[in-house]
Amino acid sequence: MQDRKQPMALNQLIVERLMHYYHLVAEQIEINASGYVSSAQIAHLLDMDDTLVRKDLAAIGVRGRPRVGFSTNGLMDAVRETLGFNEHYNAVIVGAGRLGGAIASYAGFGKYGLDVVALFDSDPARVGDVLRGIPVEHVDRMEEVIKQHGVRSAVITVPAEAAQPLADRLVASGVRAIWNFAPTSLVVPPGVFVRHEHISVGLAELAYYLKRNDLGGGHI
Amino acid sequence: MQDRKQPMALNQLIVERLMHYYHLVAEQIEINASGYVSSAQIAHLLDMDDTLVRKDLAAIGVRGRPRVGFSTNGLMDAVRETLGFNEHYNAVIVGAGRLGGAIASYAGFGKYGLDVVALFDSDPARVGDVLRGIPVEHVDRMEEVIKQHGVRSAVITVPAEAAQPLADRLVASGVRAIWNFAPTSLVVPPGVFVRHEHISVGLAELAYYLKRNDLGGGHI
Repeated sequence: MQDRKQPMALNQLIVERLMHYYHLVAEQIEINASGYVSSAQIAHLLDMDDTLVRKDLAAIGVRGRPRVGFSTNGLMDAVRETLGFNEHYNAVIVGAGRLGGAIASYAGFGKYGLDVVALFDSDPARVGDVLRGIPVEHVDRMEEVIKQHGVRSAVITVPAEAAQPLADRLVASGVRAIWNFAPTSLVVPPGVFVRHEHISVGLAELAYYLKRNDLGGGHI
Repeated sequence: MQDRKQPMALNQLIVERLMHYYHLVAEQIEINASGYVSSAQIAHLLDMDDTLVRKDLAAIGVRGRPRVGFSTNGLMDAVRETLGFNEHYNAVIVGAGRLGGAIASYAGFGKYGLDVVALFDSDPARVGDVLRGIPVEHVDRMEEVIKQHGVRSAVITVPAEAAQPLADRLVASGVRAIWNFAPTSLVVPPGVFVRHEHISVGLAELAYYLKRNDLGGGHI
């Protein structure tokens, strides 16, 4: 029997799909006008299977009304609640170069319950900068700042060769969730979550689409 | 009957999975040492279903040897060939701010068959800069440069409100594949491919993992 206080563990693919439903409903004005959306509408717009949409929504307790559909507000509330956007956790960004700066400048962190308290860099020329109100600290101070702010999550935006030693230091300081933009795999102990962002997946899709198009074939 | 000269159209999810296999095989030293990898190894390391791995590889013509597995070089060659990394297409980046700069600085474009010929920005202070040998041009010159270089793909890294008018101009100039980092949906005519990069999916996963961890639950 399911413990009601402890939600079912969702795997990474379900979490990603829930975010796609969330964005779709948040952005599609036509759907929002009625206040309801059907699983068929979601499935059609995301080019996926209707049954899977219903299964995912049922897994987070969203029930539709027959012939009306799912309440868009109810759906968004359930995703926010399930994924923990209402809780707040401190985060740091390791690497204050172009990519780290771009991510720090992204206004969305707070909306998803993450508060960036510091950026770190080893380049003295960058230390002391302030990006969107967030200070750039020397990476030597990383452990101290992490402990001081009870930081549990980190974004890594350093070159590949620097990533693993930094990940080791982050984990040793108490970080439990890492978003890795360095183009290399990270080895972490069990219980630490890593999301590896492969920028090349986007490049590969563009390349494939252009090739298909040239061959006169169908669309991706 | 399948036309042999025209490969089967793969949907976006298969393309993404092929890229994950490709990276896994390229990065895992233990797998590479033997020169072979089994679908079970791939499935285990990516936490997915064995059958799906075999089906995906069969779809691109990769055949395993019984009790030995798939040749890692054969697998990588097939992905490169299928996805068109050996062909070359010109690309542009629209928006030369932090994110556009970070993407332009990414060394991987060429590896996937895309050559960035220009960045565009509306800020005169940025025009004339050169990032990794790529010039920043004023956005007024966008159509001219696209036509001159036969550009077919574009990366959009501008604020949400600027994205749609720029996408319209790109499409009108002949661009057929867009990688959109602006936090908004784009409307494009049929035949134009858009990959929308939702940075918030990564944030949501971190938030969810930290929440689950706090509740003493399992991992994402």
